[in-house]
Amino acid sequence: MDIFAAIKERRSCRDFLSDPISPEIIEKILEAASYAPSPLNMQPWQFIVITKQEVKDNIFAEAERCRDWALKESGWKWLGSYKSDFVKSAPVIIAVTGDPTKTGIDMFMKEGGSVSYQYACAAAIQNMHLAAHALGLGSLWFNFYDKKNIIKILGIEEDKTLISLVCLGKRSQEPAAISRKAVKEKTTYIP
Amino acid sequence: MDIFAAIKERRSCRDFLSDPISPEIIEKILEAASYAPSPLNMQPWQFIVITKQEVKDNIFAEAERCRDWALKESGWKWLGSYKSDFVKSAPVIIAVTGDPTKTGIDMFMKEGGSVSYQYACAAAIQNMHLAAHALGLGSLWFNFYDKKNIIKILGIEEDKTLISLVCLGKRSQEPAAISRKAVKEKTTYIP
Repeated sequence: MDIFAAIKERRSCRDFLSDPISPEIIEKILEAASYAPSPLNMQPWQFIVITKQEVKDNIFAEAERCRDWALKESGWKWLGSYKSDFVKSAPVIIAVTGDPTKTGIDMFMKEGGSVSYQYACAAAIQNMHLAAHALGLGSLWFNFYDKKNIIKILGIEEDKTLISLVCLGKRSQEPAAISRKAVKEKTTYIP
Repeated sequence: MDIFAAIKERRSCRDFLSDPISPEIIEKILEAASYAPSPLNMQPWQFIVITKQEVKDNIFAEAERCRDWALKESGWKWLGSYKSDFVKSAPVIIAVTGDPTKTGIDMFMKEGGSVSYQYACAAAIQNMHLAAHALGLGSLWFNFYDKKNIIKILGIEEDKTLISLVCLGKRSQEPAAISRKAVKEKTTYIP
């Protein structure tokens, strides 16, 4: 698939079929992730591939808890009808964690430091979305939970940072395109 | 260009020709950036396109200062011969900033919050690298400076976050491939 088509036609998917994804496809997606750039090529990411239903159910329960909390906290009424069922139905969820010691020169900075490894992990996640789309799968960048609780559910080591969860699976329907602001509204020039 | 070729063959470039890049190409790269996913499709990014030599020289001076500081701080001897000249020679540098109010539900979290908008900006940057590569350009994710000083040089508003600088231009030589760890070393499974 052409790179520009992949970038423009990728959509966030919240409606997965339960069909399993083969280990080869998962590996292709993770290999794409691993080609992201990182500080000093330190490759700060680790991947946890979750297919066990019990674990997905626990993540779902945390997502629902977080939704109820967020509804109270934010007053955003649309949250009342927000369903996290995709967490249970996605055949695969991949947790991406980052190693804060693999952040290049950031580690010596007193202020605003230790972010480069997180940005590298986010770039790896974007590669995963593009690869998944090119392989005919839907994906979702899923951040709607208290990280502390997901860390506990997945047994992530204390010295690692949970960056995000990525839900993966075949789409049960084609998600609608979502508009983007024009580039000129987002750009200033110093010529 | 095929998406997997773009992902695998992209390299960090530190050796640019000074040939200018057309506004159309810059716009294509920024359009690719703008198709990254973001929390609630809030599109938290803004782009500053820098082609003015004086501004690039100021960024270069900060990069050199930071290198000298980092050499002392880290004791990493290779930094002694590290040159930031690519900052001066790259025909275009794009600063990517993020709006912390466009971070979705993160904004209500007390701990570890307000990162989703930064991850979205990092995903946008990865799209820029891939688009640049597909358009025959080299690019560099450049983080080697004290952000406070770059914010001052570029006059970035106080309520925005500087995510990163991206250097862009034609490559003066083909950078060598850099190895990646095997996926299986980076992955655990919860089946």
